[in-house]
Amino acid sequence: MFFRKAAVIGVGLIGGSFGLALKAAGLCGRVVGAGRGAANLELAVARGAIDAFETGAAAAVTAVRDADLVLVASPVAQFEKIFLEIGPVLRSDALVMDAGSTKRDVVAAARRGLGGRIARFVPAHPIAGAEMSGAGAASADLFRDRRLVLTPLDENSAAEVDAAAGLWSALGARVSRMSPEEHDAVFAAVSHLPHLLAYALVGDIAARTDAAQLFGYAAGGFRDFTRIASSHPEMWRDICIANADRLLRELSMYEKKLQEIGGLLERKDAAALEKLFTDARAARQKWLDGGWQGGESR
Amino acid sequence: MFFRKAAVIGVGLIGGSFGLALKAAGLCGRVVGAGRGAANLELAVARGAIDAFETGAAAAVTAVRDADLVLVASPVAQFEKIFLEIGPVLRSDALVMDAGSTKRDVVAAARRGLGGRIARFVPAHPIAGAEMSGAGAASADLFRDRRLVLTPLDENSAAEVDAAAGLWSALGARVSRMSPEEHDAVFAAVSHLPHLLAYALVGDIAARTDAAQLFGYAAGGFRDFTRIASSHPEMWRDICIANADRLLRELSMYEKKLQEIGGLLERKDAAALEKLFTDARAARQKWLDGGWQGGESR
Repeated sequence: MFFRKAAVIGVGLIGGSFGLALKAAGLCGRVVGAGRGAANLELAVARGAIDAFETGAAAAVTAVRDADLVLVASPVAQFEKIFLEIGPVLRSDALVMDAGSTKRDVVAAARRGLGGRIARFVPAHPIAGAEMSGAGAASADLFRDRRLVLTPLDENSAAEVDAAAGLWSALGARVSRMSPEEHDAVFAAVSHLPHLLAYALVGDIAARTDAAQLFGYAAGGFRDFTRIASSHPEMWRDICIANADRLLRELSMYEKKLQEIGGLLERKDAAALEKLFTDARAARQKWLDGGWQGGESR
Repeated sequence: MFFRKAAVIGVGLIGGSFGLALKAAGLCGRVVGAGRGAANLELAVARGAIDAFETGAAAAVTAVRDADLVLVASPVAQFEKIFLEIGPVLRSDALVMDAGSTKRDVVAAARRGLGGRIARFVPAHPIAGAEMSGAGAASADLFRDRRLVLTPLDENSAAEVDAAAGLWSALGARVSRMSPEEHDAVFAAVSHLPHLLAYALVGDIAARTDAAQLFGYAAGGFRDFTRIASSHPEMWRDICIANADRLLRELSMYEKKLQEIGGLLERKDAAALEKLFTDARAARQKWLDGGWQGGESR
């Protein structure tokens, strides 16, 4: 497997790490980035994540011309516009992937934008977020030992999907496959909801008149609980909007759980609270130990 | 400041660290531990946290006899029984403190248990929890650069409170003072509620039929968000029961916030979601930078 020219559209944490990882693995001749911010793109060149870049209105179109590998790693809200632009100039043998955190909306945008070239597009989600962003935070090891979910389309050939899986495996990721619907349901529960909960807690405290005192006594538990509230607001806005229905289901289930716990507190039901805490701690430890079937602790 | 004999009742993470820190600072001649589990107490001796221990029914009474410093670091639910037992044998000049995470209930238990000796008791809360427990996790540096809250009683003399503050300062803590009521309100918001939320999320996911798949895709954000769900169930049961009224207030405010966010998701109000996330991220960054008045980032 070797690609002559990779185009990375959106050279942030994920796009920049993809370029670095491709080069470190010797899988690619040349990586061209396309993006909005010249300073970030220059940093990506300086760090060796890309060899050259395009910026401005036609950046994506120019970058993908002649590319046999394309990664769309921009904010998901820009995908449809990007697919519409690059569709007509894509090589007929190019492997096109994305790195979006939601999948149903990305697939819909790709169908609208790529039209007849949809078979070239294999939707991908590297589970490698961090609260940092930009090419400055990129790392050749970002995908190593992390999960990578492919949500293949009916139009994809088996060879196309295997090529995508092989590429990410070569970058160190542990690749699995599921449907876009299943993907969005799973990540609403284990990723999108926790982000929302953390943002909500920090926002709630910051809005109070005694916020300074409250933050003054917040300690290590609070710091870890709210780490994901330092995530990229634009990205998480798009994720929440794209996956709103699934996220609302999760939020509603969680609210029911909180009401149940509120009832335990009102009745001062010490035994039920202790059981809740004991079971949760045991479940988390089982997760850390890899004890859930298909368990994953990183 | 030097104590001839310190009695540490409950030699877990906090009690064991107190012994280690006292000795490292050269503030104490001899430290005697009292507790329930002989194996843990033997480990505490082996690690140098205590010099000797008492166990069994009369352990606390025997340990505090002749002690000029007493730290009650057992689970809070045992405090009243301990205060009742040790009250009659306390030296009249002993400095007695606790390490409980709630304060209104501890003060009430101390008044009932210590009776006329209540003036000797200066309630204390070292903000130095961890999801580990037991003497094996103790460290002489546990309190260093951490906050320590004293909630002095009207009966305490200024000299007594100053002695307590001086002792914790000598162990490296940053000491502040507030009323028991204020303490319980502050920690319901920044500590007790986040713990409850983390336990609730893990419990909710663990109870589902597809729990194995969900945990299989949980990643670093989930790990940090739920770290405090590995905290000690018995300790957190007691905290939640003792501070139930304040915690219910916090839970109710948080539920309102979640309903508000649910409304934003239903209306797909992208601008309001982005503002919420941007403001929360900025507030958290200000906290990490120490920018809130009296700010604390550890």
